[in-house]
Amino acid sequence: MSTITPLPNPEADPRVKAVFDDIRATRQTDFINNMWRYLAFDPALLEQTWAEVKRVMATPSSLDSLTKELVYITASIVNGCSYCVHSHTAAATAKGMTREQHAELLSIIGLAAKTNQLATALQVPVDPAFERG
Amino acid sequence: MSTITPLPNPEADPRVKAVFDDIRATRQTDFINNMWRYLAFDPALLEQTWAEVKRVMATPSSLDSLTKELVYITASIVNGCSYCVHSHTAAATAKGMTREQHAELLSIIGLAAKTNQLATALQVPVDPAFERG
Amino acid sequence: MSTITPLPNPEADPRVKAVFDDIRATRQTDFINNMWRYLAFDPALLEQTWAEVKRVMATPSSLDSLTKELVYITASIVNGCSYCVHSHTAAATAKGMTREQHAELLSIIGLAAKTNQLATALQVPVDPAFERG
Amino acid sequence: MSTITPLPNPEADPRVKAVFDDIRATRQTDFINNMWRYLAFDPALLEQTWAEVKRVMATPSSLDSLTKELVYITASIVNGCSYCVHSHTAAATAKGMTREQHAELLSIIGLAAKTNQLATALQVPVDPAFERG
Amino acid sequence: MSTITPLPNPEADPRVKAVFDDIRATRQTDFINNMWRYLAFDPALLEQTWAEVKRVMATPSSLDSLTKELVYITASIVNGCSYCVHSHTAAATAKGMTREQHAELLSIIGLAAKTNQLATALQVPVDPAFERG
Amino acid sequence: MSTITPLPNPEADPRVKAVFDDIRATRQTDFINNMWRYLAFDPALLEQTWAEVKRVMATPSSLDSLTKELVYITASIVNGCSYCVHSHTAAATAKGMTREQHAELLSIIGLAAKTNQLATALQVPVDPAFERG
Repeated sequence: MSTITPLPNPEADPRVKAVFDDIRATRQTDFINNMWRYLAFDPALLEQTWAEVKRVMATPSSLDSLTKELVYITASIVNGCSYCVHSHTAAATAKGMTREQHAELLSIIGLAAKTNQLATALQVPVDPAFERG
Repeated sequence: MSTITPLPNPEADPRVKAVFDDIRATRQTDFINNMWRYLAFDPALLEQTWAEVKRVMATPSSLDSLTKELVYITASIVNGCSYCVHSHTAAATAKGMTREQHAELLSIIGLAAKTNQLATALQVPVDPAFERG
Repeated sequence: MSTITPLPNPEADPRVKAVFDDIRATRQTDFINNMWRYLAFDPALLEQTWAEVKRVMATPSSLDSLTKELVYITASIVNGCSYCVHSHTAAATAKGMTREQHAELLSIIGLAAKTNQLATALQVPVDPAFERG
Repeated sequence: MSTITPLPNPEADPRVKAVFDDIRATRQTDFINNMWRYLAFDPALLEQTWAEVKRVMATPSSLDSLTKELVYITASIVNGCSYCVHSHTAAATAKGMTREQHAELLSIIGLAAKTNQLATALQVPVDPAFERG
Repeated sequence: MSTITPLPNPEADPRVKAVFDDIRATRQTDFINNMWRYLAFDPALLEQTWAEVKRVMATPSSLDSLTKELVYITASIVNGCSYCVHSHTAAATAKGMTREQHAELLSIIGLAAKTNQLATALQVPVDPAFERG
Repeated sequence: MSTITPLPNPEADPRVKAVFDDIRATRQTDFINNMWRYLAFDPALLEQTWAEVKRVMATPSSLDSLTKELVYITASIVNGCSYCVHSHTAAATAKGMTREQHAELLSIIGLAAKTNQLATALQVPVDPAFERG
């Protein structure tokens, strides 16, 4: 399925093992999803990607954890990434997203898709009131 | 700038006036932004679009008002709609989005863009654990 | 505005002049829009692009001329090309697109944007009845 | 495959059954494609989406039925929605799209994709003749 | 899987056979990948597409052969075309792309995705120094 | 124009000044383009973004400097980021991209856009020969 051949035993590489160990510790689970198993084809890329995910998504911040996942799902849907839609919908569910919130999220994304394309179609000029500098 | 000629006096049409009046009442402001002024070139399209925006965005629901705007900004950025990025960033700011939250939102969107494209590049297979049915 | 410097007198190049002459003859107008003036920075690219536009868009075929423009506008909106949305909306209007048809076109594009993203969000499996081989 | 678990017997919910009945009556077929079966996870979202599809696509209007499907396919391809490309190609075929028209449609979409990206690459300024207001 | 039924014996059509023969001769292989087998549903579309691929990708030019493939992979990833990501990653590998270069390519694409969306989010004005005319 | 108000004197903040100094030293120029001036609204986002750009784009690696810029332009065009198309076309020109190479780059991008959408339209199945694991 993939464009690369994943390593049969990725944790034989100590750099990969260190990242996988940190994923397990951070997420408090033994499950390492495929994204990380495939990124392990290049340990540097794996390290950098995980470091950024950990910093942005797994560190307490000004947005709560569920809101972050809702934003991530939204971006993944609009970017058209099937894998990411799956993984982040699962993550949001694990963080408490209800069926009602899921449906409402999709309503907003669907509405935004529509109005985004209407504004592009009409080439609506930006209101001066919206411009900052 | 636009692909259509906006009506010089759109509220001369009672259907347009009814929508604009409802926008003013719902948002408690006299400001009608350009999106609505341009959509007024077709009253039916204006009515339907506003009805959906009002239902999805201006009705209390399972997601709070600021979260909805963060989702809308995200979709607008990824869809590449300049007008919508402006209008929804302004709306989120009006609803209390801080500079810190704005920067954090952009960090998530930037990270999602990166990992979305990495997953597409590698064609990572979906983990069975993420599949629902 | 552009990323290249357009030639001050592009028709001094006989290859450019030949293309511009063919555009004028094919479209029966003296107006050469900016797309061609900027593509003239590379005569080979200009020739190839125009040859394809002429073959696909200006040759009688199984789809009528207005339908072709509606498809072209749709693609341009979804691809997010501001220039192309402008030029093809103007072309469709010149070929008889009414205001009502324009608004209806936008309704379909807006609806498709929404349902496309809903299907991506839910990762709806393709019905076997839709698969051909 | 999906991000949600579809209901095993969706028509047990009377709101879902009412929508499915209307789909069958409107399309004069017993076939309910997966899009609706999955949207049924949230009856309100199902109702709203079907109401819009019925209004835009299944009501006589200023664009003929096949042209509407060609526009829908185009949007679905450019939006990259695999499910929708399948369902709307099947719908267009059911409405009489010939192999020749299908190939021609793809030629236009391919050409638009190319010229859209050329215009973006060159950042061609919009001709004043194309601007409306 | 496909939206069309591929011909069981496409080379029975002499136009298709001529294209397939040219692909085999140009690429010095007996392998005809599915893209061509499916495009064969319309011989004119097949001929035009192959002629362009041959001219752009298989003719010595100002960019070397591997660089061209890296550009093609990049476009395919960002356009979200699963088939093309597969076929052009395989082509780049056949032309000598190392694992290190592959990982670096993905780092650039991931970074570009991020900064592209940041610039869109902030609506950063173009520096006058970047404008040509 | 922007969605944020850039700081009038961004280098008054020592974190911003440190980044700007590093940009000047790395690029050996006094010119700080707007991307950095606007990202300065959040020093952490500025630092992280520049650190990644410096690591990926300004460090000798397995891909040469011009090739990296060609990949970056490609991603920026397909992502539809006007600002980035401008800045990276200027950067590639500064690194020696000729007019001929620029035109050829656009030919590849245009071709990829076309074949990407054809493959999506036909939903061409991936050849087993392209799958790695």
